[in-house]
Amino acid sequence: MTTKSSYRIASIPGDGIGPEVVSAAIQVVEKLAKTLGTFDINFDHIPWGTAHYKQTGSYVTGNALDTLRSYDASLFGAVGAPDVPDHISLWGLLLAIRGPLQLYANVRPVRTFPGTKCPLTTATEGIDWMLVRENSEGEYAGQGGRSHVGQQWEAATEVALFTRVGIERIMRFAFEMAQSRPRKLLTVVTKSNSMRNGMVLWDEVAASVAKDFPDVTWDKMLVDAMTVRMVAKPQSIDTIVGTNLHMDILSDLAAALAGSIGVAPSSNLDPTRKNPSLFEPVHGSAFDITGKGIANPVATFWSAAEMLIWLGEKDAAAKLMGCVERVCAAGILTPDLGGTSDTQGVVDAVCLEVEKLA
Amino acid sequence: MTTKSSYRIASIPGDGIGPEVVSAAIQVVEKLAKTLGTFDINFDHIPWGTAHYKQTGSYVTGNALDTLRSYDASLFGAVGAPDVPDHISLWGLLLAIRGPLQLYANVRPVRTFPGTKCPLTTATEGIDWMLVRENSEGEYAGQGGRSHVGQQWEAATEVALFTRVGIERIMRFAFEMAQSRPRKLLTVVTKSNSMRNGMVLWDEVAASVAKDFPDVTWDKMLVDAMTVRMVAKPQSIDTIVGTNLHMDILSDLAAALAGSIGVAPSSNLDPTRKNPSLFEPVHGSAFDITGKGIANPVATFWSAAEMLIWLGEKDAAAKLMGCVERVCAAGILTPDLGGTSDTQGVVDAVCLEVEKLA
Ligand SMILES: CC(C)[C@H](C(=O)O)[C@@H](O)C(=O)O
Ligand SMILES: CC(C)[C@H](C(=O)O)[C@@H](O)C(=O)O
Repeated sequence: MTTKSSYRIASIPGDGIGPEVVSAAIQVVEKLAKTLGTFDINFDHIPWGTAHYKQTGSYVTGNALDTLRSYDASLFGAVGAPDVPDHISLWGLLLAIRGPLQLYANVRPVRTFPGTKCPLTTATEGIDWMLVRENSEGEYAGQGGRSHVGQQWEAATEVALFTRVGIERIMRFAFEMAQSRPRKLLTVVTKSNSMRNGMVLWDEVAASVAKDFPDVTWDKMLVDAMTVRMVAKPQSIDTIVGTNLHMDILSDLAAALAGSIGVAPSSNLDPTRKNPSLFEPVHGSAFDITGKGIANPVATFWSAAEMLIWLGEKDAAAKLMGCVERVCAAGILTPDLGGTSDTQGVVDAVCLEVEKLA
Repeated sequence: MTTKSSYRIASIPGDGIGPEVVSAAIQVVEKLAKTLGTFDINFDHIPWGTAHYKQTGSYVTGNALDTLRSYDASLFGAVGAPDVPDHISLWGLLLAIRGPLQLYANVRPVRTFPGTKCPLTTATEGIDWMLVRENSEGEYAGQGGRSHVGQQWEAATEVALFTRVGIERIMRFAFEMAQSRPRKLLTVVTKSNSMRNGMVLWDEVAASVAKDFPDVTWDKMLVDAMTVRMVAKPQSIDTIVGTNLHMDILSDLAAALAGSIGVAPSSNLDPTRKNPSLFEPVHGSAFDITGKGIANPVATFWSAAEMLIWLGEKDAAAKLMGCVERVCAAGILTPDLGGTSDTQGVVDAVCLEVEKLA
């Protein structure tokens, strides 16, 4: 007797092109499950986002964390709309999940994908990096305030909070990630020359965790200098770990250097598996192209594949990525990558490839 | 009767290659003054830095700010040494000057220089940007602390402090800078989607200052998205303004994208001219090549030229830059730019060019 795994996924399309790319990914993943027959997967539609906020005054319904805990994982689109201040929408939804649900490891693989071209003359063979972002504290702890609002002497703070536990767990995760990769290189990004407290603690924890990973070659770089290295010596880089803000910046940069942010996926993981992880494209809601049907679904396909890996369906994920890569390599691309296909055209092409797996 | 201006400059070579590049710049500027005969300039050697710290326990002598106030400007090399924690050396010298002396505008012109090559396939005509960095507060306010040091529950903060006055003055400076450039474009960098206090104030002040500059075309970008734009659409960028940390990162990135951080200059200005401004290369002390005589002096030449402009010697500065550009274009370059010249070789070549101005 064999048992077939069955997964329940919270689908949170959100705003802008979010619904377009999430619907694209669901079509492809459902086709994959049906074709392979090795697992079942069900997506529940969760209508959180700016429309929900405008109707109810809240981005979510009830206790969002408890809702998500009843699923095996979440597939997220994007949040943010032109007529709501970004900090309201982001903290209303995405940032209300990442930290509170202790999804502390934001993992962003970056590589030059078929159909994209690395714009660096210094990286003729393209880029293949693994970025690990602390996702639960630091500059995104949400602390700080404004005083004397509107007065000439108004002052405001943004407080970055770092804990030893928070740093230790992401550092350990990053060293393990580096260890699992062929080159076993890790760069720890820091800014401990100008920031004397949390960033110095960050350095200290890095040095102490490193002792448990003698087979990983690691170094430390200031975030500003790291951008120079990414441009000038891309081949010297393998795995990178850094704070919430530093890696927010470096992961966008990395995706652009690799060829396009339109294909970049991200996983918001709770490595302890107490809480379900959340998967989302790196790009945002892109209201300028919303509703035109031309959003690039590849970042969400890739995010869904990362989700399958996390759920234990490594083989299915690899097959899915193979299909996506073949379609991209064949030049079936959305306009952002210089192609002439629309979103559904890419979906259909990937589904056709998936059918061939039967 | 004509009067000849005479300037007294504090020369602070500092650590690593600092003394090598500052000495190079002094030779060139002294030759320029002598050749043109239109102004006098005298450099006083100020021995602050890590050697001073090791001897005396302090990076500086007496009241550093008062000392600097007795000069017309400062020419700074670099600070930082492998055997002193970076936050001790930086806050011992450079960061003890920038903020406290209210040198609130850190100006970093970035362009593809003769002898360097833009590594971006997206910028075939090279890059020409003007970066304006808030230099007196924000993430470099120096606030924060550590509690429960060494315990498992240790927590540390880094507090970014923003004031309305601080933001307003740099914003005004940046709009004026944009106004003075042919394209009159300004991008205000922010991170107000995840940071809800100081960054929102930053956005508000930008919108209000913008009203006074109807002839400047401005937009707002999140710092992460800005890196993507710098890589993917470099031609769409002209002037950029942002916080202390954001522009620290973006200015290194910009220099790398333009061709080399080895030529990038910076001015730490007090636009009110109450305090003397400080000029320094963007690069650091570079201990790996210290003492080898191969440091690239071009960033310091360019910084010295910016100093001359600030002092009122615009014409002399332009002539100096012409000489430096001709030398670089002729391929007389240090090894970091793929050349075979040493520092003194570049100095001698520039001095020869300067002599031709006679
Ligand atoms: C949407 C925004 C809050 C987010 C961030 O800054 O973390 C995004 O840029 C990302 O990288 O996931
Ligand atoms: C030396 C260091 C403190 C400095 C900074 O971070 O500001 C440097 O990187 C710079 O850009 O001037």
